[in-house]
Amino acid sequence: MADVPRSDHMSIEEFRRRGHEVVDWIANYQREIESLPVLSRAKPGQIRTALPPEPPAEGESFDAMLRDVDEIILPGLTHWQSPNFFGYFPSNTSGPSILGELLSAGLAVQGMLWATSPACTELETHVLDWLVGMLGLPGKFLSSGKGGGVIQDTASSASLCALLAARERSTAGGSNESGCDGHLTAYASTQAHSSIEKAVKIAGLGRRNLRAIEVDSAYAMRPDALAEAIARDRRDGKTPCFVSATIGTTSSNAMDPLRAIGEICREAGVWFHVDGAMSGTAALCPEFRWIQDGLELADSYCFNPHKWMFTNFDCDCFWVADRAALIGALGILPEYLRNQATASGAVIDYRDWHIPLGRRFRALKLWFVIRHYGVEGLRAQVRRHVALAQTFADWVREDSRFELAAPAPLNLVCFRLRAGDEANQKLLDCLNASGELFLTHTRLDGLFTLRMSIGQARTERRHIERAWARIREEAARL
Amino acid sequence: MADVPRSDHMSIEEFRRRGHEVVDWIANYQREIESLPVLSRAKPGQIRTALPPEPPAEGESFDAMLRDVDEIILPGLTHWQSPNFFGYFPSNTSGPSILGELLSAGLAVQGMLWATSPACTELETHVLDWLVGMLGLPGKFLSSGKGGGVIQDTASSASLCALLAARERSTAGGSNESGCDGHLTAYASTQAHSSIEKAVKIAGLGRRNLRAIEVDSAYAMRPDALAEAIARDRRDGKTPCFVSATIGTTSSNAMDPLRAIGEICREAGVWFHVDGAMSGTAALCPEFRWIQDGLELADSYCFNPHKWMFTNFDCDCFWVADRAALIGALGILPEYLRNQATASGAVIDYRDWHIPLGRRFRALKLWFVIRHYGVEGLRAQVRRHVALAQTFADWVREDSRFELAAPAPLNLVCFRLRAGDEANQKLLDCLNASGELFLTHTRLDGLFTLRMSIGQARTERRHIERAWARIREEAARL
Repeated sequence: MADVPRSDHMSIEEFRRRGHEVVDWIANYQREIESLPVLSRAKPGQIRTALPPEPPAEGESFDAMLRDVDEIILPGLTHWQSPNFFGYFPSNTSGPSILGELLSAGLAVQGMLWATSPACTELETHVLDWLVGMLGLPGKFLSSGKGGGVIQDTASSASLCALLAARERSTAGGSNESGCDGHLTAYASTQAHSSIEKAVKIAGLGRRNLRAIEVDSAYAMRPDALAEAIARDRRDGKTPCFVSATIGTTSSNAMDPLRAIGEICREAGVWFHVDGAMSGTAALCPEFRWIQDGLELADSYCFNPHKWMFTNFDCDCFWVADRAALIGALGILPEYLRNQATASGAVIDYRDWHIPLGRRFRALKLWFVIRHYGVEGLRAQVRRHVALAQTFADWVREDSRFELAAPAPLNLVCFRLRAGDEANQKLLDCLNASGELFLTHTRLDGLFTLRMSIGQARTERRHIERAWARIREEAARL
Repeated sequence: MADVPRSDHMSIEEFRRRGHEVVDWIANYQREIESLPVLSRAKPGQIRTALPPEPPAEGESFDAMLRDVDEIILPGLTHWQSPNFFGYFPSNTSGPSILGELLSAGLAVQGMLWATSPACTELETHVLDWLVGMLGLPGKFLSSGKGGGVIQDTASSASLCALLAARERSTAGGSNESGCDGHLTAYASTQAHSSIEKAVKIAGLGRRNLRAIEVDSAYAMRPDALAEAIARDRRDGKTPCFVSATIGTTSSNAMDPLRAIGEICREAGVWFHVDGAMSGTAALCPEFRWIQDGLELADSYCFNPHKWMFTNFDCDCFWVADRAALIGALGILPEYLRNQATASGAVIDYRDWHIPLGRRFRALKLWFVIRHYGVEGLRAQVRRHVALAQTFADWVREDSRFELAAPAPLNLVCFRLRAGDEANQKLLDCLNASGELFLTHTRLDGLFTLRMSIGQARTERRHIERAWARIREEAARL
């Protein structure tokens, strides 16, 4: 019966059988991932060329689909879950997360309103409250007060929502009503993520009204430069409305000094957003909570369990101290969404906490992850990754051909050959072409710099040892 | 071994075993869903009360998690996949879609750049090109020309991206550069989705600069009123920049006349966006393509396979005729994302086609759905749903206590008792409280109106018959 054409729904019995096959496929993938070249060797157009130009008129068998996954899709993937993936940032996942996502897809409920599936909303609120305690975040982010948390797709969207709330607070709702007028200004360091510039453009503030604040020698925002920029804008008749600080910049894992920045924001009456997308997970461990010292001065905060907390993409956790400000900026209530629970005011309707209306049951996978590992289990993983990165940094320090390019406070090590940009670019290209590991780069003070990002679930000491051996070999060959 | 505390990763063998369990759980859920009350009976706070106030310090067994899904989560769900779910809009899913989502979660690759997993980008472009043919969309949306398609999370986000591209085109990139200045105006009918107002606010145009265009007796936008509004704004020194038309409004499935609207937009040099979120799927069938007559005049278009095309949320397909305009509005390129493939210009980097940076491999599930059903299989499902809705509309017409409240061109039937708002509200509440079926409401010309939305995968004639019998019974009892 495997290859008979079909046009009807998959039967429940076939779903069961095919589902087991896909689970087994993933289990085998996990087992064999280490043997695959980390960076895909596909050439532009290669995958499309292998696909038929027209969709099938009649249904095909699931066997045919899985065969194409093996033969066409797999060679076109860069294996983010490989223990030898050290590029960009971790985007790790785990068994409980995958199964939570599967369950969510099977239930396929909509969580746009409390009423459209109460458990979808309440579990999300509950888990986000749990995380406030787990990470040692300020109590004002708890839903029991005036604040609360929500799952967004990405930190990009969270930052945009924070900016919109800031925009409306500083114009008393006037921008939503009459539009922006070019007088609002926003602030982030020169090292801030590109999503801040993107948000400033989307929200109608304009790129020219985003101030790129200078950083110190550790690539962290200089509070004095921020204070000065805000004062200058005020003198020029601008209205400073939004500051975004980062704990763990993408480029080099720099930690902006939240307390000093927060005090300036409070003084100036400016919304203070903190982006902990990559490194926020470290705060599971008390010994790493220094990174968020001063967070109680923030109006909003986000971090991504889909980066370094074993929860598959997408899952960004976003908190605000004043949920009314967020809902005021994003709220809508057409007739067809009215219902008793919403009217009672006793429930949260998450549609007003982000840009999309619809939303899937993303809290399930996060709940599964927290319960599977337990808080101590998650801490152990973070400590393991940080220890591996610190070991790697030691090795770099001990080899005179190399230098560390920035402090390495957690799980990202920025380093380079002292031999200059060309040598470093060559080194990176040779390593990535080998398929044995994958790293990416950045520029720090204009210099081409390699980034060793450690945080994939299955990365162990032997992978780091092997990576360092390969780096030294290729460096010797240059 | 089932209940031993743990803190490490789930082993591959346990993943395999638990994965089979979750697949079986979903199969059982599908089998039994019809026996569950469609609308959740949970009271506000009920789910949270059943959850422990603190997360576990040590890991828990998967058995404990699945038990809580059964005992706590399930009673808190409204069953969108029930064949007796007739509320809001279809948000249907299917076996191949669930398995595509599972595979995507298992691979857990990032598709923000072509280089970060070429197959993730190329399969998406390919399937979106397939859909241009499958739906009979204008050729200018194909990626082989100047246009192209991308998967967004929702139509809300797609409309926002269209508006941003429109904003930048009409200000020659000036809004991104210097911010909005309150002179841009946008247009949609009084019946347009709330997401358009939300987008206008987010993009900094201001709600006052969104014109709500009058509709005709079928709730479709009046082109003469649109032309007049645009002309009035021009006289007042405004810059009309964006018109959004809907094929299949959420409230009553009204079809805005695209050709007439498109000609006005072309004449006025205004970006023309079309939102076919719910009803766009109907265009799989040539006999329903009249709904998109004139779409060749549009600059952008979206529809949601996650509504009525058996693909689980989220999956909104969004096309533009001029991808350079979209990328110009949303593009960013920090150093850490630079790579050879991007520099070559030979590839698509989807990060610049939407708001988030990161993106998961959503094309897999859409590809699986299209291949499982085949084009003819999908057409057969659409025809089946439309026929069921038309039968239901006939029954309403034949019962003198009821009236149709709007034309029912496809799979949504708006109807009400002639007895007035109070009776209709009571009727709705009784039906939904019974748990046997679930409907939602709207207001048309101020009158409380019931909406019968037909499009869940497993809804058959017997469910419609039973729903109509229950509606008549409850009406008789009022």
